[in-house]
Amino acid sequence: MQKHNFGAGPCVLPPSVLEEAAAAVRQLPGTGLSVLEISHRSPGFEEVMIGTERLVRELLNVPAGYSVLFLQGGASMQFCMVAMNFLQGSGKTAAYLDAGYFSVKAIKEAQLFGNVHVVASSKEQQYGHIPKGYDIPGDAAYFHCTSNNTIEGTEMFSFPETGVPLICDMSSDIFSRDVDINKFSLIYAGAQKNMGPAGMTLVIVKDALLDSIGHRLPAMLDYRVYRANNSMYNTPPVFAIYAAMLNLKWLKEKGGVQAIAQENLAKAQHLYDEIDRNPLFYASASRADRSLMNVTFRMHDASQDKKFLEFAQNNGMVGIRGYRTVGGFRASLYNGLPFSSVKALTDCMKVYAETGHAYLIPAY
Amino acid sequence: MQKHNFGAGPCVLPPSVLEEAAAAVRQLPGTGLSVLEISHRSPGFEEVMIGTERLVRELLNVPAGYSVLFLQGGASMQFCMVAMNFLQGSGKTAAYLDAGYFSVKAIKEAQLFGNVHVVASSKEQQYGHIPKGYDIPGDAAYFHCTSNNTIEGTEMFSFPETGVPLICDMSSDIFSRDVDINKFSLIYAGAQKNMGPAGMTLVIVKDALLDSIGHRLPAMLDYRVYRANNSMYNTPPVFAIYAAMLNLKWLKEKGGVQAIAQENLAKAQHLYDEIDRNPLFYASASRADRSLMNVTFRMHDASQDKKFLEFAQNNGMVGIRGYRTVGGFRASLYNGLPFSSVKALTDCMKVYAETGHAYLIPAY
Repeated sequence: MQKHNFGAGPCVLPPSVLEEAAAAVRQLPGTGLSVLEISHRSPGFEEVMIGTERLVRELLNVPAGYSVLFLQGGASMQFCMVAMNFLQGSGKTAAYLDAGYFSVKAIKEAQLFGNVHVVASSKEQQYGHIPKGYDIPGDAAYFHCTSNNTIEGTEMFSFPETGVPLICDMSSDIFSRDVDINKFSLIYAGAQKNMGPAGMTLVIVKDALLDSIGHRLPAMLDYRVYRANNSMYNTPPVFAIYAAMLNLKWLKEKGGVQAIAQENLAKAQHLYDEIDRNPLFYASASRADRSLMNVTFRMHDASQDKKFLEFAQNNGMVGIRGYRTVGGFRASLYNGLPFSSVKALTDCMKVYAETGHAYLIPAY
Repeated sequence: MQKHNFGAGPCVLPPSVLEEAAAAVRQLPGTGLSVLEISHRSPGFEEVMIGTERLVRELLNVPAGYSVLFLQGGASMQFCMVAMNFLQGSGKTAAYLDAGYFSVKAIKEAQLFGNVHVVASSKEQQYGHIPKGYDIPGDAAYFHCTSNNTIEGTEMFSFPETGVPLICDMSSDIFSRDVDINKFSLIYAGAQKNMGPAGMTLVIVKDALLDSIGHRLPAMLDYRVYRANNSMYNTPPVFAIYAAMLNLKWLKEKGGVQAIAQENLAKAQHLYDEIDRNPLFYASASRADRSLMNVTFRMHDASQDKKFLEFAQNNGMVGIRGYRTVGGFRASLYNGLPFSSVKALTDCMKVYAETGHAYLIPAY
């Protein structure tokens, strides 16, 4: 049976990318070696690094004056690196927007390195919406926000105008839609959603912000060291970067971020339409802030959750259980997920509502 | 032409491991998904984590009271993590042995977090030997050493007896020979030598040492967080861990560390014999400290370096150029490298010495 992978990350990747990645694990063209065996200082891998950076710059339209860095440790490592680099020793306060589970983690890490001012929070409303209409102090070291809340299923469709550096965790919606990089001083993203497999972190940072750092930091926690060494101060995660390059090539061939954004919108619209129409389900997030990447929804009768989950799994749906602290359901609609998978899910929801029985839909 | 990969890391891996890894990138048995797409919270991957830890414990005979952790960032990240966890806030001095390029880096990072006492150094002798006969202060926070110097080609064949916690960077010789884990309080190793592909770091640490930490640390830099979350506080490098598991299984099937140690000894002996015998070459490292993993050697007439390198490359040798700051040659003989590759290299050296001409050896 065909699987439809709605996992929140690591997540579905295009079949052609998986094929090419598998072939390179056998042998990387032109080297006679596996991609797992090549030296990161070899000309073959230098091309991969350069090519991956070029694709990032092209797909996101990264302006001059920004560096593109590849790190390890995921967004969670960025929670502390951002504060170590830009809050610690600044004598300033950092402003954070609290809009979900990962915002909370970012705030907690920043508090180890200085004063943190939370400009607004939707915690009391179970993070069902993105706070709006808050003030960002003009003397803050920076303002930090999370563009897409993977767990709660909300997404920021506009970013505040502010004179302080805007730092954004875009882990779960980077490369899914057009953003104006000029507005941001630093963007970070764990790779394992729309960029590639787990094990690599992307950072796009304004050089002027890096140049403002005045204190010494451990090499591996200092963005300047990555910039000075083209992200090869030490051995980078070779395979994760290679697979990301393949995936970004695929995205470019599809027409880039603008083209995929249209597809992503159609996928999300199709699923939200069914959630809104189907008498058994309702969307968890406030309508204006509904994420196009992570669609969270519930059953009016929560006692049916287990039965519907089983029914969906029996029909090939993977990864639709809601996050453990949240419950309900979550379908992640990342770039690699085809519309046909979303259609398969809405068919499940329809049939389940019509029959109430857990049986296999013949078509799947 | 068959390639013989003497790269210092990332490095040669057994062909069967590469085959299995490639197959899993296509589809991981039992999941219907690629190993790059599976959730790190799925039962399939939990088995991988448990299995990898079990193999580490079994192959290295890790005693009870030690945790086995999987991190990211390579040994370079450990340089600062060790000091952040065990020197910072301790009010003590950390003792370091300076025996090579990576010792220097470890010392530099530690100095950011407290006082460092270098017990001995072979810097003045270009790190051609491992210092011996030094004193380790009994009140040091810990003693840090590097068991194998990848760049200089020296290896520690005995470790000092000390009452302070012994911390060791075993990046380039872990799993290559038997060590008594009981002697160590913490061992770390970047994976990309004898464990698997780049992108994962192994830490084996005594629980009592972790329990002695009294200060707060960022989550991703706190060993206790990895212990408390079975190395899944955030998304781990799924594929790197999976490939490491395959490689450790291969090692187990070969007879484990004791068996591979015999092979490694035979490979190194064969190459050092040729270096000692061949009138054109000499070994860089002091005889007693010659590394079994990274064999460094030079030509008496350095003006011949380029010609011999070309000759060797034309015969399929990969990665034998010495490290850029050191020069000469280096052949890394990690677990995955077969004896036949070492034989191919010594054949090159023999033929080159006999003919002085750069031509293809018919056998390769």
